[in-house]
Amino acid sequence: MKVFQEEFSLRTSKRNEMINIDRSVRDIVERSPILDGDLVVFCPHTTAAITINENGDPDSVHDILMTFEEIFPKDRPGYRHMEGNSDSHCKSSLVGATEQVLIKEGQLVLGTWQSLYFCEFDGPRTRRVIVQVRGV
Amino acid sequence: MKVFQEEFSLRTSKRNEMINIDRSVRDIVERSPILDGDLVVFCPHTTAAITINENGDPDSVHDILMTFEEIFPKDRPGYRHMEGNSDSHCKSSLVGATEQVLIKEGQLVLGTWQSLYFCEFDGPRTRRVIVQVRGV
Amino acid sequence: MKVFQEEFSLRTSKRNEMINIDRSVRDIVERSPILDGDLVVFCPHTTAAITINENGDPDSVHDILMTFEEIFPKDRPGYRHMEGNSDSHCKSSLVGATEQVLIKEGQLVLGTWQSLYFCEFDGPRTRRVIVQVRGV
Repeated sequence: MKVFQEEFSLRTSKRNEMINIDRSVRDIVERSPILDGDLVVFCPHTTAAITINENGDPDSVHDILMTFEEIFPKDRPGYRHMEGNSDSHCKSSLVGATEQVLIKEGQLVLGTWQSLYFCEFDGPRTRRVIVQVRGV
Repeated sequence: MKVFQEEFSLRTSKRNEMINIDRSVRDIVERSPILDGDLVVFCPHTTAAITINENGDPDSVHDILMTFEEIFPKDRPGYRHMEGNSDSHCKSSLVGATEQVLIKEGQLVLGTWQSLYFCEFDGPRTRRVIVQVRGV
Repeated sequence: MKVFQEEFSLRTSKRNEMINIDRSVRDIVERSPILDGDLVVFCPHTTAAITINENGDPDSVHDILMTFEEIFPKDRPGYRHMEGNSDSHCKSSLVGATEQVLIKEGQLVLGTWQSLYFCEFDGPRTRRVIVQVRGV
């Protein structure tokens, strides 16, 4: 088995934003020596997350972010954390810090409409994304 | 390390539904040459998901689906995505496209009440489930 | 590749609680022969979960648990499951039964403010946590 790890940075521009990271992840898989296995995309931040969702219509991303903002309002009464981003921490734990994608013959195994997204929930910020590819 | 990958299809019958897929996943592990390692169950759809939850009482599944439908109503005002399934995309990102289960001596390491479920959030449809088993 | 698996128990003291498990997970990695790879933390219970979130301010954990309790009230009208913990099952599927952390040179690759938490959603109970470390 081989383990290959790289990371990249990105700059977000809004408080809540989903950024397609397919290209950056595919580039890392291409640089790796792995043909069959999987990869983990890891977000080392507690107010952001990684997800897989629809890439066919930008309105899907709009609707997802809007739903999350309505269910997790920034100013929920009773919040104690002084930074004012407890909503972001909630979304981070629910969407999750990682995604896992299988790799077959050097290609990501994704459904027709699936893309990998970095989810910013407390931007704008500069963020890191770590990708580990492992397999044979 | 060995990597063994197979997929299966299933037909869902409702808009929201959780289908126990333990049997199909166990069959793949039994066909694989792997005794110790883990497996990933991957859902290649953006309006469905994979989860692990209670198998002891069918009412649990009823209550989970009911809760999700109430928190994510199909017709939230402000939705732009024309397909009318933005609620499904939200649930998909929150429940997640993958589950990971450990394998020890050829058996799935699951708690007494745990089963793997395919979560349909925009059915009825024919769906695919990809399973990768890896280990030694 | 090597696969190393251990588990530990913990006792929760409230119905909803997030317990930092970094120390127990790090101890397992140190006992394992693995320097580069990853680990999976698996929760074998259907009313609990594993997450990664903020460790800098205990108020963050308070706010996350408070938000979840408000969005998933224990007594939602319409619940059928007789045990009275359908809210716990919902949270379990949304937060998720696993977390995955990368390992580099024998160390967990976590962001500055990230810690691993066991999430109790139906305590107090005695719970198990299974950790699998794999890599080279």
